[in-house]
Amino acid sequence: MSSFTAGVIVIGDEILSGRTQDTNSNYIAKKLLEAGIKLEEVIVIQDDKKTIIENVLKYSSKYSYVFTTGGIGPTHDDITSESISEAFNLQYETNKMAFEILENYYPKGEFNESRQRMAKIPIGSELILNPMTAAPGFIIKNIYVLPGVPEIMQVMFKELMKKIKKGKPKLVTTINTNLYESKIAKNLNNIQNNYTNASIGSYPYFNLAAKTGGVNIVVSSWDMKSIQPIVDDITKMIELNGGKSSIV
Amino acid sequence: MSSFTAGVIVIGDEILSGRTQDTNSNYIAKKLLEAGIKLEEVIVIQDDKKTIIENVLKYSSKYSYVFTTGGIGPTHDDITSESISEAFNLQYETNKMAFEILENYYPKGEFNESRQRMAKIPIGSELILNPMTAAPGFIIKNIYVLPGVPEIMQVMFKELMKKIKKGKPKLVTTINTNLYESKIAKNLNNIQNNYTNASIGSYPYFNLAAKTGGVNIVVSSWDMKSIQPIVDDITKMIELNGGKSSIV
Repeated sequence: MSSFTAGVIVIGDEILSGRTQDTNSNYIAKKLLEAGIKLEEVIVIQDDKKTIIENVLKYSSKYSYVFTTGGIGPTHDDITSESISEAFNLQYETNKMAFEILENYYPKGEFNESRQRMAKIPIGSELILNPMTAAPGFIIKNIYVLPGVPEIMQVMFKELMKKIKKGKPKLVTTINTNLYESKIAKNLNNIQNNYTNASIGSYPYFNLAAKTGGVNIVVSSWDMKSIQPIVDDITKMIELNGGKSSIV
Repeated sequence: MSSFTAGVIVIGDEILSGRTQDTNSNYIAKKLLEAGIKLEEVIVIQDDKKTIIENVLKYSSKYSYVFTTGGIGPTHDDITSESISEAFNLQYETNKMAFEILENYYPKGEFNESRQRMAKIPIGSELILNPMTAAPGFIIKNIYVLPGVPEIMQVMFKELMKKIKKGKPKLVTTINTNLYESKIAKNLNNIQNNYTNASIGSYPYFNLAAKTGGVNIVVSSWDMKSIQPIVDDITKMIELNGGKSSIV
């Protein structure tokens, strides 16, 4: 097990209506893996205060790190900051530094009431700076609040990753084979049973037009010093079954 | 409110490790919207029996329809069917029809033990046929169990949609404007307050290279007979603010 765990809360009706394909959680997942932080759950929820509060509290107590995306813009449907304040019974008020950053960013006279709303966050939060469009995210307790626009979220997340405590990275090796999944399933299960500190995932793919396919076998472990013995066992097993394998 | 609600449970370590970008929930979201079924939550969980059981039971009691994707293949990490059986205290056993379908599909002598496992489902389930690779999904109570491979999932889901009870479709219109979100946020909020049976979503986009951007405003309602009055109000408001608008 990694010493650090994480949960991601994707906030937005536009994801649930299918209008927007969420790519933020996939981006975060990859970066967390590199950072040795185990992402255990992702939830996509509506722009609804009660739902946000419930999930933020649940994830906050369950995981080392909680990342939220979406709902921190200037419009009436952006209720993430307000909801998180309420979740922790913290005052929802204008952050001086956020206000100044935004005031400097906008042309004179254009820092209107709606934009000023983006400076309102739970009292005691630390800002996550936004080098692209100024409006900051924030950190309160173990909650990291990020925007929904992927380009902006990614830049802010990258900066964030430089600062937070990381775990020992997970060891991961992927073996590709041209054999079908069912052909090797039993042997794979036997190998899995020999190594309880590692996990062996089996991901079939099909090229239906070409009538070909195969499996990507992902060997991973948070605990082992090396997963090479498992990789060797699998490679040998594929060979014995008349298949080809390669590390991808 | 739609008369029908739904939740989606995406099962798979490969999503949480970032290896695979989930596109199934986005596909399902779009199809449910067309079918007048309100998708209220999506959760991505690990290949872990306890977690699957917990979430299946929770979603089953919370939503009209629950769709799961992933974990019904032949390998040791495919534990969805087994877990759902256990969730409802139902025997996990070979379904005769599923067995025959699979037996006919595979060349003689290749319907091995691992493949036979794909015929094991909770007793009393109805099959969801798979015209591509034979291995069926199933329906038990209000749970619809689908595979994780998108091409196969989509074909099966389309068939499913022909059979299940649909709701009144949600009315949705999207208005694009070249104005920035903050410029219209306050007015949009006022319009929202005039129409409590509809929801107005505001989705900014930025082309950072070209330094342009704008907003897509999505007006939607499950209840109203027409959302044209709201669309008219918004279009007029954009014009008054010196912007352009178009229905997209």
